[in-house]
Parts: sequence; C-alpha cells; structure tokens
Amino acid sequence: MAAQDRGINFVETKYFSFSNPLNEFFLESGEKFGPITLAYETYGELNEEKSNAILVLHALSGDAHVAGFHKGENDPGWWDAMVGPGKGLDTEKYFVICSNILGGCKGSTGPSSINPRTNKQYGLDFPIITVKDIVNAQCHLINHLGIHKLLTVIGGSMGGMQVLQWAVSYPDRICSAIPIATALKHEPQQIAFNEVGRQAIMADPNWEMGNYYGHSVPAKGLSVARMIGHITYMSDISMGEKFGRNVKANKEQFKFSPEFEVEGYLKYRGDNFVKRFDANSYLYITKAIDRFDLLNGKKLGDVFKALKAKILVIAFKSDWLYPAYQSLEIVKACKLAGVDSSYCEISSTYGHDAFLLEIEEESQLIRDFLKTVSKR
Amino acid sequence: MAAQDRGINFVETKYFSFSNPLNEFFLESGEKFGPITLAYETYGELNEEKSNAILVLHALSGDAHVAGFHKGENDPGWWDAMVGPGKGLDTEKYFVICSNILGGCKGSTGPSSINPRTNKQYGLDFPIITVKDIVNAQCHLINHLGIHKLLTVIGGSMGGMQVLQWAVSYPDRICSAIPIATALKHEPQQIAFNEVGRQAIMADPNWEMGNYYGHSVPAKGLSVARMIGHITYMSDISMGEKFGRNVKANKEQFKFSPEFEVEGYLKYRGDNFVKRFDANSYLYITKAIDRFDLLNGKKLGDVFKALKAKILVIAFKSDWLYPAYQSLEIVKACKLAGVDSSYCEISSTYGHDAFLLEIEEESQLIRDFLKTVSKR
Repeated sequence: MAAQDRGINFVETKYFSFSNPLNEFFLESGEKFGPITLAYETYGELNEEKSNAILVLHALSGDAHVAGFHKGENDPGWWDAMVGPGKGLDTEKYFVICSNILGGCKGSTGPSSINPRTNKQYGLDFPIITVKDIVNAQCHLINHLGIHKLLTVIGGSMGGMQVLQWAVSYPDRICSAIPIATALKHEPQQIAFNEVGRQAIMADPNWEMGNYYGHSVPAKGLSVARMIGHITYMSDISMGEKFGRNVKANKEQFKFSPEFEVEGYLKYRGDNFVKRFDANSYLYITKAIDRFDLLNGKKLGDVFKALKAKILVIAFKSDWLYPAYQSLEIVKACKLAGVDSSYCEISSTYGHDAFLLEIEEESQLIRDFLKTVSKR
Repeated sequence: MAAQDRGINFVETKYFSFSNPLNEFFLESGEKFGPITLAYETYGELNEEKSNAILVLHALSGDAHVAGFHKGENDPGWWDAMVGPGKGLDTEKYFVICSNILGGCKGSTGPSSINPRTNKQYGLDFPIITVKDIVNAQCHLINHLGIHKLLTVIGGSMGGMQVLQWAVSYPDRICSAIPIATALKHEPQQIAFNEVGRQAIMADPNWEMGNYYGHSVPAKGLSVARMIGHITYMSDISMGEKFGRNVKANKEQFKFSPEFEVEGYLKYRGDNFVKRFDANSYLYITKAIDRFDLLNGKKLGDVFKALKAKILVIAFKSDWLYPAYQSLEIVKACKLAGVDSSYCEISSTYGHDAFLLEIEEESQLIRDFLKTVSKR
C-alpha cells in the first residue's frame, strides 16, 4: 500500500543552522565549534501554548527521519510504528520533533561535513564530542522552534542517554522524560564492544586516518563493526528462534563463506550499513557514548537533584547490552532525588532491539504516561 | 622462584606422526588426509595396567603445554594450577597427556604446516576439519601410547566439545569424562561471534587468501578477532571489577587511541595473541567449533546411548558464552540415556574464563570425582 493511501502525508527533512559568533557554541571540551547544522523533521502541529512538543532522540545509527515517508522512498522512518496518528506518540495530539545528532552523517554537521575553513570534509579534524554537546545543540533547535518547555523527551539506547542528559542539563525545559533501554553511564563491557568496532574500522587500510572521502571507504572495517553491534542488539534466544543452526541457501563454494543463516544475515546487515553510514561518524558517536557518565564521581542521589520532571524508565528482559539493572539504577537515582519516577520491564526475547520492536506494550505505557503528564 | 626450586621437572614437547597408507586417516568429509603430526606432552608415570591415563583437551588457543615449564621459559603451561603433583589432576597418581589439536599451530599439523606435496605451507589448501577429526587424530596418539582405556577425558570450552565427542565416538575407550563450560552444539550467537572474528581476519589485506606465510601476517584482523573473543570470555561483572571506567595511564595523544583501561587491556591481549597464533588456524578451528553439533537431528536421549562412562558436567554462573543451560542440556542428554552423570555449577564472576581461574573448587570436584572412577 502506498504511503498516501495509508493517509500519511509525506515528510520533508528541514535544516537549522547556527554559527559563531551569533550563536556561540562551546563544546564540553571548552573548544568553540561551528557553524553547526541540524537536520530535523516534525510531525503534527505545535499548539498555541507550545505545550505539546515531544523531542524524540535517536540511537547510534538513527537519523531525523523517525516516521512517515520521504517522497520516492518505500521505507518509513525508523520508529514509524511509534510516531503517527493514533500511535504511541500520537501526532494528532502532539508535535513531534526529531533531529539528527551532532556528529552524525544524515544531514547534521559531522566528520563527513565540509569544514568551511578548508573546504574539505572534516575527517579527524572534527572535534571529539560528548552526549552533552549533542544535547546542547538540540537545545539550540528547540529555542529556534520557540518552544520553552518540552512535554517529554524520549529515546532508546544512546537516545536514552540524551534523554537523561536533557534531564540533567535542562531540568526546567522538560515536563517529563522517557529513557528506554539505557544507562546512567557506559560500563566496561559496553565500552569494549564499541572499541572493538572502532579498531576494526581503523584496521581497514581504506580508512587512511579518516581521509577516505572521495576514495574507497573503509567498507570491510565498518561492516565488521556493525556485525559486532548486531550481535549485541539481539539475544541468544532471539537468534536461536530466528536462525537456529539453519544452513544458508546458496552457500558459495569458498571454504569460509557464510555457511549458517546467522552468518549470512550478519554479513548482509554489515555490508548494507556501509551504504548508509559514515565510518568516521561511527568512531565519534561511539566515543561519545563511551564517555557518557552522569555519575562521574557524584553520589547517585545527586544526579537528578534539580529535576522536577516526571520520569518513566523502560527496560527489556532479554536486553543484555543495556541490562535491566542499569535501568533500575536510573530509577534509584530518581527516587533518591525525590523525582516522581516509575519503572517498567517489558517481557521480550528480542534483546536490545526490543525497544524498536515491542511496540504494542511500549506504546500503551507511553500513551498512559503522557496522559498523566498532560494533565499537570 | 625458578621452576626447579619449586620441585617441578622441566617438560619437553614430543611429536607423534602417522601417515597414509600405514595409518589411513579419513576426515569426516570423506577426504583422506596425511601425514599428520601431533605435538604432545605427558606428566607423571603410566602405571603397569595402563589404567591411570588422563587426556586433557585444550580450548581454541591452547596447546600441548598444559603444565610445568619448558627449559628457558618463565611461564608455566596453560592449566598448570590444575595439573601437577598434589593438584586437581595429580601427576603423582595419574599419567596426564595433552596434545595440540589437528589444525592448530603449536607443533601439530595445521594450515601453517608444510604440505609435503608442495613444500609450501598449506594455507587454505588445508582441509576443513571437525571436532570429530580432531578427536580421531587424538585416538591415534592414544593407540600409539598403548593405552586402551582412558581414566578420564577432561577439558573446557572447545576442550569440552572434544570431551563430548570422545564420549560419542569412543564410548568404550573412556572410563569417565569431564566436560567443562561447554555445549552439545554451537548456537547461533556463538557462531556469530566466531564469524565476526573470521570476517575481521579475512578483511585484513595482509591475509591474502591465507597466503601470508613469509610476508606480513594479518595482524590487525587477528587482533580484532581476539579482542572480540576476550570480551566473550569475561563477564560484565568481572570487567566492572577489573577496570570500571578507569582511564588508562599514558594515553596517547591520538583521538582514538585506547582511553579506558579496558580498551588498553583488550588491545594488548589482541596484539600479543598475534605473536603466538596463526590466523589461518583461527579460521579453521573456529569453523570446527561452529560445525559442532552432537544432536544433528538426533533425539536428545540418543546422543549418549552407547555410553557406560561416568560423567561430571561443570558450568560457571557468570559464563554467558557457554551458559549453564547448555551444560544442563548435556546432563539431560546423559540422564535420558541412563548415563551416570552429575552436575555442578560453580559460583563465579569470571565468566567463561572461570574454567581456567576457579581452580580451588574445580580441583576439589575433579579430585573427588576421580576417586569414584578409580574405585570401579
């Protein structure tokens, strides 16, 4: 069924740019950086009081295109099941905003963008950024849209880290927050998986210290990094159910070609990722994730000290990349700070991917939660 | 303290070769293969009845040097805490044998061995081998040593798969078996981790379709493969305890140099592995592991049908690479076949590595179990 037949309007990506010296932007490192462009999309209508805005925050490989269709494309946005008329984030009620993160490669300023000072892609001249920098840039966009207070900020995985960073950096600018399948800080096993992905990219001779634009990209390295990622996004149960020990149809003759379905799937996902993602963005964004630590020596009860917003924390049973105990730590931090918080662990075998797949229960939780926020 | 001061005699690696047509060796694939050399070491004395022999089976990166010291070396064998006078496998009582597996790179015939037909290293001309082939080759060695019946076969991880294969292929040649931290068949998540490692090796341009001998080895690819392995050998708890979010001392200036201790550790282990292991062996051995499936369409109760030996299955609580439920499946298969089997799950935070580290409890279990076997 074509997008229009399903009653969905096409969506277009918009761009917002801000630059020094008019809008000074200092990175967490102290470095001044700009100009910055953020690609973003909006869905639904902002009401007159500007009180119905929801900011959706995407994960590592996401982008601004959270829902609906771009003209000429067959696939909807990455969380289309959640965002739309009558859905969990109901665009008949709410004004939904999603922007590609700073450091990304889907329209926002990142290492593959042109550095106006050299007229060449930044590559490794792009500065190290943090989740705080990403959120600070988003705040410029929210200011630009004339919104003082967001009804909620919501996101899973690295999107959830941005949610938590909003709660810490801009406690007065949000009425509520929904961190999903995420953590207060990145733990060593999580860092380790990211680091192996980075090493795989940097081991690819095509990477050339990040100067590969216009030549061959480090496709094999990025593909391996993505394959590692995919293993951590699933669970042993979901892999067992999906693939078992099934042998691939049409196995190539070569001894070490993918033999089992699971191998073919991972290779396919890895190779496909290369077509749509920039290897340097992968390095910078995973580094931002690894540096994420809202505790950073603080007491747990002090993390959300200034927060008045209401929090709904969601985790998934089979998620071993961001296990439920890390979500419970967020809840504990909220409770210790007297923040109005609730927790729900959704039963699922999908692993970390569940936040994109367990839509029905997740939508219900979010819908009911938002009703209590709207009433305030 | 030097080895001799500790009362341990030096051990030397021995070699046993057999070849067609005198000792025909057919691979599981039907292919005839040879000559084959196995590097092996022995500890303790074989008694007159030849009834005190124990075969230790090593994991992916192990070798024949399980215990004691080689002359001129400072590090003992890989399971020295388990094998020796008065230890879990007491060399004052037992005659312990360990051989490097077929396909390995520590003295046994593998892809880095010289192919007598070409006078060059086999490389990818080496045939695909299976755990069954590995065990069949070991059986030739046991025959050569004049041992009809092994008191026990013992090993962890892939060593445990060999243990189980012995129980299936040679049920009358073993009195008992001790599979540790292992599985009846390799599941898709386990296959996936191995496949990503293989892809990392094959993505390295130095790999050159396996023809790298005498030139540069695929060091970066093999290092990435080993880093992935190491993550799966530990647990999130043990990584948390060992590294936390500690930042590395002496971080290099480069933006994407290892920043956290956990990154530095993995990189160190990866780079070190390259010095002692052959990348093609890594491909062949992980492939053998991935193909391992003792069920292969059989009913669970039929796997150990012919077995009279006594089985002790050991698993570790935090082992998520070979989780306890896979060990319980081995026990169930034994029970269904009426095999005398017992199970013990050792509390540990070390993850899969626990089989090399939780020596005290493991030794006690093994020592007591072997007493009941000896009495038979």
